Amino acid sequence: MAEGVCAMTTYNLMLMPTSYGHPEEEYWRLIEGVSMWDVAVERQVQLKGPDAGRLVQILAARDLSKCKIGQGKYVPICNHHGVLLNDPILLKRAEDCYWLSIADSNIWFWAEAIARERGLDVEVSEPDVSPLAVQGPKAENVVASIFGDWVRDLKYFWFRETEINGIPVAVARSGWSKQGGFEIYLMDGSKGTKLWNIVKEAGQPYGIGPGNPNWCERVESGLVAYGGDTDGQTNPFEVRMGKYVDLHVPDDTVGIQALRRIAADGPKRHQLGVVLEGSEPAKADFRWNDIEKDGKKIGDLTNCTWSFRMRKNIGFALVSVTALPGDMVVVQRGAGPVEGTLCDLPFL
Amino acid sequence: MAEGVCAMTTYNLMLMPTSYGHPEEEYWRLIEGVSMWDVAVERQVQLKGPDAGRLVQILAARDLSKCKIGQGKYVPICNHHGVLLNDPILLKRAEDCYWLSIADSNIWFWAEAIARERGLDVEVSEPDVSPLAVQGPKAENVVASIFGDWVRDLKYFWFRETEINGIPVAVARSGWSKQGGFEIYLMDGSKGTKLWNIVKEAGQPYGIGPGNPNWCERVESGLVAYGGDTDGQTNPFEVRMGKYVDLHVPDDTVGIQALRRIAADGPKRHQLGVVLEGSEPAKADFRWNDIEKDGKKIGDLTNCTWSFRMRKNIGFALVSVTALPGDMVVVQRGAGPVEGTLCDLPFL
Repeated sequence: MAEGVCAMTTYNLMLMPTSYGHPEEEYWRLIEGVSMWDVAVERQVQLKGPDAGRLVQILAARDLSKCKIGQGKYVPICNHHGVLLNDPILLKRAEDCYWLSIADSNIWFWAEAIARERGLDVEVSEPDVSPLAVQGPKAENVVASIFGDWVRDLKYFWFRETEINGIPVAVARSGWSKQGGFEIYLMDGSKGTKLWNIVKEAGQPYGIGPGNPNWCERVESGLVAYGGDTDGQTNPFEVRMGKYVDLHVPDDTVGIQALRRIAADGPKRHQLGVVLEGSEPAKADFRWNDIEKDGKKIGDLTNCTWSFRMRKNIGFALVSVTALPGDMVVVQRGAGPVEGTLCDLPFL
Repeated sequence: MAEGVCAMTTYNLMLMPTSYGHPEEEYWRLIEGVSMWDVAVERQVQLKGPDAGRLVQILAARDLSKCKIGQGKYVPICNHHGVLLNDPILLKRAEDCYWLSIADSNIWFWAEAIARERGLDVEVSEPDVSPLAVQGPKAENVVASIFGDWVRDLKYFWFRETEINGIPVAVARSGWSKQGGFEIYLMDGSKGTKLWNIVKEAGQPYGIGPGNPNWCERVESGLVAYGGDTDGQTNPFEVRMGKYVDLHVPDDTVGIQALRRIAADGPKRHQLGVVLEGSEPAKADFRWNDIEKDGKKIGDLTNCTWSFRMRKNIGFALVSVTALPGDMVVVQRGAGPVEGTLCDLPFL
């Protein structure tokens, strides 16, 4: 509040800042400088106990047998029909302790139900962990000035648990942008303001300012939003997550039989970009609008944003696999039809 | 919005109106007249298929063997440890179709996980159903004037599926107040405004106006709010739901072994009321404040409200079973300690 937040949304039953009142300034700060985000809404579902490793492999259709302590992995979580329920980052803290850093759906209940029904010796909980993201090309300098130069050697999605001024944290090279940066997993919610101020002060020489997961940048960069770009039928192959599915995982992995079937048959939809005609920002009425080709619906526009770098309205198209990059399409929106062209993702 | 809603909260990932700007007027309208509430946030988890009846008995630790089509039941849903996950109204629509009209937690994922892990032949979904509540002593006249006098014969929690001006609905005698009334389960979200206006017009002779689940009335009436008055350890016996738990349900009911153990050992906490000293409305800083007796913490104040009828600040106490009605206690709140007296619930 003290930083001037002026809009919020809800996410995992908490409030997430979505604007500090200067959209374009906040965008360029992320692209060219460094931005800090309260993403405490990225809750952790902790799996702890002798069967934690077994449970995580049952939940995620990605081969985790080589995942090391201190390593993170992007893991689609599917139901028994192969439908995507969440796309968390898995963090392996110990052989018997994992975090799933979740998107906006209740994986706590899901994991607890599976754990108990399988009779596993593992505790599922939501610990007191609240991530703070530091994103942008200058993020590394900021985070290194706080924690030391070792953060420069962290590989993508790897993390280390440490502390700063008595505040327990895990520092990970991750974050929901493609501009580089870190997430600092605060492990004591009572010290949030203290940690925020440490980062803010360290970032002053680099022009740090407040921000949030940036809608424009994430669309330009092709980052999927679970629940935004997915519906109740979406499987990982439809939204460019096929490379995070390993079909050879054990047969007791939830949804693997369905995923093998879908992979064999080939998915019915795929995710492309669409660049709309026109050179003025469009009104924000673009969510899940019909996309037509030759007068017939071929899928949906699942998001739309004005791209500050492309100076075009762009969005994701979840469309029939018969639609291909280069195809001309029509998007039906409130104000009337708009022409566009399909393309590969990411845009930039 | 057209009715002048001025505050909302989130509930089951949707927005729920919480004020139309005139708290005391809205309260007395419920107590003495009739109030209409958009409670579309009460989502329905539908269980449909040959094993729907089996699944619902697996999920709920209440004997449902005698539940009839058209009947509703209040059913605590617990996890395998006997901890409360939700307290929905179950509506039996057909031998192979049930709705769980849920409080604020994701029972869809929970039920889906249990159904699939048990290999049951049942589909779990969230259908297009949005309840509208009509509450207060004059609610019956309003609802009868719309649907006919048969609604006067509906027993508590019973319902009938019907339609009004082509709008498919289920009419149930239920609602989150103790002032009597009905919930109209709209089964076509596109017709919400139309249904709202039908009820509004029928209610004019009775002085109907907009409202919402009323915090003051529900505390006076002793109604539990899942997630508000419960924490991650609360079992049904602690919050006066023991009468809705049947220990003889089948052994494969989720949590029944734990619930039998808790019942045999006796719960550690119970829920009482507390009447605070003072005769001015207290500031709203009263949630989960420590309750002390003889200088030692004995539990928590889980809600607090100014009672318009009692002219006192009242709330629920989740306290050690050693604390009893009549005990003098001290509540630690932001502005300092306040004395109070424990009592039985409901207050009125």
